[in-house]
Amino acid sequence: MEPTISIQALQRMPTYLSLLKGKRESGTVYVSAGSISAELGLVEIQVRKDLAAVSDGGRPKVGYVVADLILDIEKALGYNNINDAVLVGAGKLGKALLAYDGFREYGLNIVAAFDADPSVCGADGSGKPILPVEKLKKLCQRLKVHIGIITVPASAAQAVCDMLVDSGVVAVWNFAPAHLRANDGILIKSENMAASLAVLSNHLSEKISKI
Amino acid sequence: MEPTISIQALQRMPTYLSLLKGKRESGTVYVSAGSISAELGLVEIQVRKDLAAVSDGGRPKVGYVVADLILDIEKALGYNNINDAVLVGAGKLGKALLAYDGFREYGLNIVAAFDADPSVCGADGSGKPILPVEKLKKLCQRLKVHIGIITVPASAAQAVCDMLVDSGVVAVWNFAPAHLRANDGILIKSENMAASLAVLSNHLSEKISKI
Repeated sequence: MEPTISIQALQRMPTYLSLLKGKRESGTVYVSAGSISAELGLVEIQVRKDLAAVSDGGRPKVGYVVADLILDIEKALGYNNINDAVLVGAGKLGKALLAYDGFREYGLNIVAAFDADPSVCGADGSGKPILPVEKLKKLCQRLKVHIGIITVPASAAQAVCDMLVDSGVVAVWNFAPAHLRANDGILIKSENMAASLAVLSNHLSEKISKI
Repeated sequence: MEPTISIQALQRMPTYLSLLKGKRESGTVYVSAGSISAELGLVEIQVRKDLAAVSDGGRPKVGYVVADLILDIEKALGYNNINDAVLVGAGKLGKALLAYDGFREYGLNIVAAFDADPSVCGADGSGKPILPVEKLKKLCQRLKVHIGIITVPASAAQAVCDMLVDSGVVAVWNFAPAHLRANDGILIKSENMAASLAVLSNHLSEKISKI
């Protein structure tokens, strides 16, 4: 049984990874938890613990071999096995995510999008198909897809979430500004960009009045 | 002096807003904090407090007029004055955000993108210009742009953040998987999609082994 990694630690891993990849590119061979924590402004003991949870390559005084640590983190994050995902809601945001192939380097491959509106179905500019939502369950089951991305309006998000779970999805990435509920065992990770914009916009209106 | 709204309350506002807009569309005239909290799975006293911070239209037993409450929340979030923003890093994600015009309904308008690579500069498919990063400061100052969006690789993100702040930006929306630092008074809101994917991917690998 592998040691369980905390969600907080998992969320820091991509930050470590990008720092380490920068070091590898510039030819750095060894790196210590101390130098990583200093560069990222994190607490050293936390970095030390995080790295120990994914790699046993750390040596006293020497630290980690950069290239090995990268592989260990990528393995812990499952970046080596690309995960297939479906996306529901082929509106503006859905299409932008569908066309964005940068997720592949994080191990995510969107295989198809679905929409309730037949007029948007067909081949997308991205080359990925947009299918009628009625076909969702069959495709998920046939291709064993376990990640679902929700980009429908907030009012439809819970129904889509239920539909995804019913199709075998166990990890939901929600971009709708809605609070979603699902059974235990289903992970819902919300990316509430509207919430971020609300904070930015409010900060701005407070600041601007003083500028 | 307006009462200050907590960041947590601000982040919940878009969720209220989308629920309320759904109600307005379906012809609902009145809404109570109690029914909102039940529908969203939130604590009623919190919803009551949040709404009281942005609107004084609540009446005992009747609740709020849906249409008025929408206007009050939009005003609090500053959605009525569209904020101009610049985006730095015209790679895949940057271009996707540039082409996505859904941010306008949240009061955000991206006026131009910037990139260090001259070969990507020019007119984008979105109709928005991609300019050399050397022109960033002048444009921000001339157009009084105070929001900056960072979509460069993590290794370049802090330098870009410093450049934005130096150009008069006070609110930074960071999409790079990097921990950014700035002076007091500068708000940095990070949208760490890589961190979300790490959590989803790890959950999946734990689940799949049991399926």
